[in-house]
Amino acid sequence: MMNIKVYKNILSANEEWAKKTRELLSNKKTLMWNIIGSPGAGKTALLERLIPALDGRLSCFVLEGDVETTNDAERLARLNIDVRQIITHGACHLGAETIYKALSELALPGDGGCVFVENVGNLVCPSEFDIGENGKIAVLSVTEGEDKPLKYPLLFREAKAVILTKIDLVPHLDVDTTVYRTNIQKINAKLPVFEVSARRGEGIENLKQWFLSGFEKY
Amino acid sequence: MMNIKVYKNILSANEEWAKKTRELLSNKKTLMWNIIGSPGAGKTALLERLIPALDGRLSCFVLEGDVETTNDAERLARLNIDVRQIITHGACHLGAETIYKALSELALPGDGGCVFVENVGNLVCPSEFDIGENGKIAVLSVTEGEDKPLKYPLLFREAKAVILTKIDLVPHLDVDTTVYRTNIQKINAKLPVFEVSARRGEGIENLKQWFLSGFEKY
Repeated sequence: MMNIKVYKNILSANEEWAKKTRELLSNKKTLMWNIIGSPGAGKTALLERLIPALDGRLSCFVLEGDVETTNDAERLARLNIDVRQIITHGACHLGAETIYKALSELALPGDGGCVFVENVGNLVCPSEFDIGENGKIAVLSVTEGEDKPLKYPLLFREAKAVILTKIDLVPHLDVDTTVYRTNIQKINAKLPVFEVSARRGEGIENLKQWFLSGFEKY
Repeated sequence: MMNIKVYKNILSANEEWAKKTRELLSNKKTLMWNIIGSPGAGKTALLERLIPALDGRLSCFVLEGDVETTNDAERLARLNIDVRQIITHGACHLGAETIYKALSELALPGDGGCVFVENVGNLVCPSEFDIGENGKIAVLSVTEGEDKPLKYPLLFREAKAVILTKIDLVPHLDVDTTVYRTNIQKINAKLPVFEVSARRGEGIENLKQWFLSGFEKY
């Protein structure tokens, strides 16, 4: 019982910070996306393609979460945007307090800011924590197998979109993107699914339009 | 402070169950391996190849951990071995108490039993919990990228072996297995690395010999 109570306290404190983040984002007319996927699903490679496509229309920032190393932040800093590395030193997800503090340090414009939070590579724990984002984005590689939405349903229930990555590898795998879509829809019938190859730049234009349309609704 | 204390209590209770498991395994001259890797790294496909190769020499059992679904247990039950599904309903790793209780129900022989615990697909949390295993085995797919041992070092520090899976895909990826090995060695210099393609059956014989040699040391 005690463990459950403490866990509730942690979630409740987290919720307070998430609320402050939502206020900050709303004041700055900025959207923040919580990018969640397995290790090696291609989250960083995706941002390397997507951010230059959005450049000029939106002011992009990245909060980069990793258990160890600054590899991913270094890759994204080459895009000449403001990237902040958050090293969790073993923790399996990013918490709302850390995100609020990092976000407060960014020079967000008064309008049209877009913050991508690349969460720790993990399909389970990051899905459980609200960090004040406007939406979670599920990144799933076609190499992971079609049953993953059924085996890790929480992320797909919570997400605002799924990005199916590495589609250039489909001819070399025993998978079918139709089955990926069917299994995603079993969990969340209306969830949009984008098929992307970051290596080849395929599917980036559609994805760009979807991210821009988020701002039109503001 | 309170959260830290409770976390220590959880780990300490976990350690008690792990100790009981180690006694049970020792009494039964059985080895238990804790198989850890990302979602879709190919853990189940690996066991589908490895277990038939070991059959006749060892009595194999599987404790199958998943957040949801019985898909993987159903796949492995086709090998005509005793497989028990543990559904964690959202939890990100298997705990020692659950494993002890499941293990106690298996009809382990007095000698030559081999239990594979397929942990929840997650590179982070399962690495932190001792379940009384004889060793953790890291399963890493070549599709995940060469930096993963550096970004998720705990598993590679703790593991007794690394199985690099899906090597048949290397020609279609921008990766080099030498770099995988170099990065693994940076974390754990003596860790054996096995390159395997479960789809083609490549590398299974070497791996079989390694698992059999574990028993010779008993």
